[in-house]
Amino acid sequence: MTAENELLTMYWDNECLYMLDQRLLPHRVEYLACRKYPEVAGAIRDMAVRGAPAIGIAAAFGMAIAAYEGLAKGYDQPQMQAHLTGAAKELFKSRPTAVNLAWALERLNRWLSDNAGLPPQETAAGLLLEAEKIYAEDLANNRLLGINGAALVPDGSCILTHCNAGALATGGYGTALGVVRAAVEEGKDVHVYIDETRPLLQGARLTAFEMIHENIPATLITDNCAGYLMKQGKIDLILVGADRIAANGDVANKIGTYALAVMAAYHAIPFYVAAPLSTIDLTLPSGEEIVIEERSPEEVLYCGGQALAPEGINVYSPAFDVTPAGLIKAIITEKGVVYSPDQEKLYKLFAKG
Amino acid sequence: MTAENELLTMYWDNECLYMLDQRLLPHRVEYLACRKYPEVAGAIRDMAVRGAPAIGIAAAFGMAIAAYEGLAKGYDQPQMQAHLTGAAKELFKSRPTAVNLAWALERLNRWLSDNAGLPPQETAAGLLLEAEKIYAEDLANNRLLGINGAALVPDGSCILTHCNAGALATGGYGTALGVVRAAVEEGKDVHVYIDETRPLLQGARLTAFEMIHENIPATLITDNCAGYLMKQGKIDLILVGADRIAANGDVANKIGTYALAVMAAYHAIPFYVAAPLSTIDLTLPSGEEIVIEERSPEEVLYCGGQALAPEGINVYSPAFDVTPAGLIKAIITEKGVVYSPDQEKLYKLFAKG
Repeated sequence: MTAENELLTMYWDNECLYMLDQRLLPHRVEYLACRKYPEVAGAIRDMAVRGAPAIGIAAAFGMAIAAYEGLAKGYDQPQMQAHLTGAAKELFKSRPTAVNLAWALERLNRWLSDNAGLPPQETAAGLLLEAEKIYAEDLANNRLLGINGAALVPDGSCILTHCNAGALATGGYGTALGVVRAAVEEGKDVHVYIDETRPLLQGARLTAFEMIHENIPATLITDNCAGYLMKQGKIDLILVGADRIAANGDVANKIGTYALAVMAAYHAIPFYVAAPLSTIDLTLPSGEEIVIEERSPEEVLYCGGQALAPEGINVYSPAFDVTPAGLIKAIITEKGVVYSPDQEKLYKLFAKG
Repeated sequence: MTAENELLTMYWDNECLYMLDQRLLPHRVEYLACRKYPEVAGAIRDMAVRGAPAIGIAAAFGMAIAAYEGLAKGYDQPQMQAHLTGAAKELFKSRPTAVNLAWALERLNRWLSDNAGLPPQETAAGLLLEAEKIYAEDLANNRLLGINGAALVPDGSCILTHCNAGALATGGYGTALGVVRAAVEEGKDVHVYIDETRPLLQGARLTAFEMIHENIPATLITDNCAGYLMKQGKIDLILVGADRIAANGDVANKIGTYALAVMAAYHAIPFYVAAPLSTIDLTLPSGEEIVIEERSPEEVLYCGGQALAPEGINVYSPAFDVTPAGLIKAIITEKGVVYSPDQEKLYKLFAKG
């Protein structure tokens, strides 16, 4: 698998994980080569790779890298075990909010305990296979999710989106943008309004990039403009992704999402969250319990190395906010669409075959 | 009057208007010297000077400059008259939304028709005096407005503000920030949350600069963060300025203001607009009739010369939006506070001695 023909979020080649450095987009397409698991943790922390499903996949490959590191060092089975436990802990700490990270690591840890006696070589091969499965399943789930969501997109719709919940945030295709892609594949006309999404401009840099790449009509706006578009009746529906969904349907997503949901309710515009089941965390009763990451002031204070504000000003920069389930018309998943999400419906979704 | 000790938005010296180039703040303090009225129109259009009251004052001085240009060219009275008519037209066109521009030019035109027979020298001196009056009155009105507004600011308040409605947007002291200053002068503790205000970052560049300059505790946030702060109960009141207020109390202000007002209503947070009477346009029945300026895509696409988005993406960038009167708890003016503003109350305000 190489990145020559298609822009892949990441790919594995010869015991190395190549990750598209999304901080350089849309200007440069460069892949970071990670041969040690702390490099993967660093790439997640510094947001070379971002998007809840994508960082889950990256963490899974990070475990495979750790295993191949252990192999190269000639670790025996107990040494390998200790080494992998350390790797899982470090990868887990790289970012706190997106649950897919914990979900992927837990899945690999489960595989490890189910296969505790295996020799190091087979452990490494097994972890790699499991990571590749997570990657492939994410892509397949996004396609299913896209089909489920496309039914909610009327022909001729203007769709507002925030941040990047696209191919670049996932194993490919995307969640919110997967729904857009599926609607377009069904022959529907759509127009996407893209919130630029300060501070890191994932909308301007990544979503705009994906829309141009796919020839989907789109317009970039500042985050300040979204409410005014709704007031003018220019938005038919809002589609966003999610970083963690609590058992009651509360959604943590990129900062600014909550305000969009309130504005959507005020203007009676349907507000949809598109996310795979790996983003739903049934262990948390509500959004109140979701840890919200605070990012460095520098991300607000500088843009392209240039200072935007005077020296000495305080900054508050949470990366995410929580949107209460009551403001969400439906959560779109690979297993179906959950209207007016609540704990009962989300539990049922997991029980579904 | 010089800029040596105090940071003045603009000052007049020896037939020249020196305007603080606000595009360079907070990094460089430089004054643009305007000796021809088209330079003043250009400075308004390109936002070297911005803020509704400040551009009204600048336009008034632009007329004085035009008169001194005419004098230097040895124009007789009819030539001067024609020259000033042309100048007023060009200055009027420089920006469409802020009514203070039209208000100031109308006041000078009225002075001109009241003093139609005067020789050119006296016309120039008279226009300059009128411009200086507008400047001084704006400052005085902001101080009155500040005192009126400070009564609405409880001790210990956290105040959210958008864009820059400060000294730099006016003849000095400021409207929304004038209220903050007056509250601080009364000994109240306040904390100001500053929306950075994309695309031109007047909050990050100018409001943060003013708060640091005055030692008023403040925190800079992205525009995306405002709603989340309200949800957390961290905002006690919202204070913004205005670019034009219609007769029914609808307010045009910096893009993003409307969303804040909707969010404020949702969270039951008082939303106040601080503006002098020169911002109220009784000729417009409602905000529907306010012309909203669209700015160049480059302001969204570039930051400090660096491209933020991929080439070829469409951009929509209205400079302002309109907040319906129903979302505004009160308009704070130099003549008093108008709760639940409507046409009757605003007419009464003008009639007040």
